[in-house]
Amino acid sequence: MAEKTALIVYAHQNKRSFNAAARDVAVQALSKQGYKVFVTDLYAANFKASATADDIKGDLQDPENFVYNTEMMVAWKDGRLSDDIAEEQHKVQQADLIIFQFPLYWFGVPAILKGWIDRVLTQGFAFSMQNMYDTGIFKNKKAIISLTTGGTESMYQPDGVHGDINILLWPLQARSTFT
Amino acid sequence: MAEKTALIVYAHQNKRSFNAAARDVAVQALSKQGYKVFVTDLYAANFKASATADDIKGDLQDPENFVYNTEMMVAWKDGRLSDDIAEEQHKVQQADLIIFQFPLYWFGVPAILKGWIDRVLTQGFAFSMQNMYDTGIFKNKKAIISLTTGGTESMYQPDGVHGDINILLWPLQARSTFT
Repeated sequence: MAEKTALIVYAHQNKRSFNAAARDVAVQALSKQGYKVFVTDLYAANFKASATADDIKGDLQDPENFVYNTEMMVAWKDGRLSDDIAEEQHKVQQADLIIFQFPLYWFGVPAILKGWIDRVLTQGFAFSMQNMYDTGIFKNKKAIISLTTGGTESMYQPDGVHGDINILLWPLQARSTFT
Repeated sequence: MAEKTALIVYAHQNKRSFNAAARDVAVQALSKQGYKVFVTDLYAANFKASATADDIKGDLQDPENFVYNTEMMVAWKDGRLSDDIAEEQHKVQQADLIIFQFPLYWFGVPAILKGWIDRVLTQGFAFSMQNMYDTGIFKNKKAIISLTTGGTESMYQPDGVHGDINILLWPLQARSTFT
């Protein structure tokens, strides 16, 4: 049986956090199952979050009228993405399973993890106008969202103060390019 | 009549973008109505997106077990938040109206704007366990989400490939501390 690969994209500042513990347990359990496991520790890597022209090596297509998505698509094709993005894409490419491990910030992913999503999942690499959802480029990969909340379980019930967490997270879940 | 104040939190890299034009029109229209208008240009300011211990001046409460939200709440009370956060909070405090102007990235705000939300809307300052939603600290402020999309209108219909944009944006809308 071919070795399987997992990538854990981990976003917590604190080595002693519950998120860190969840990451460690996942690494252990997956390794025991024969997975090769990559961990991207976003805060430890001081991962760049903002989508800027620095993400592209060499000349821009249209420096006078910068369009991030278009420039990134061309740079990906030409192998001119910044090293940190190329490295993450290499891990994503190999991963059969991706786990996002984070504390919920304002009903979504922390900015540093949103930066990973915005910058790494380049058009062409992660999706195209022809290939998304059912025909998605990564449709054979699995993804797990593993998160902690500051609030209590009752706050995220359909009749709770924040409303149903499944609806809150729906953009993260159903909208993923992963299945 | 007392002067009203507006804050535009703007997240686009390109001065010639549609987002920049929308910002400029808003500044013009609001100024004509007698508003004092602040603009926070996140990319131009190279706004820090990631929630880290650098957001706090002076000693941490518990450096061995860093909890961002807790440390920020205490630092806010003591006036020990980093200067960039304090400056944004000062603008938010004064603003009767806040406009978020951005291109939709992965069905949400760009990471740099998520960083503004995560870092500036500190517990104590923007909400508390006692004061949220109907009794929210900022319940008398208005907010407008003004965004552009890469996809077409039909892609965001209930039967479109991405689904109903109103449901996609619901966590941004209904979950806001603003009304």
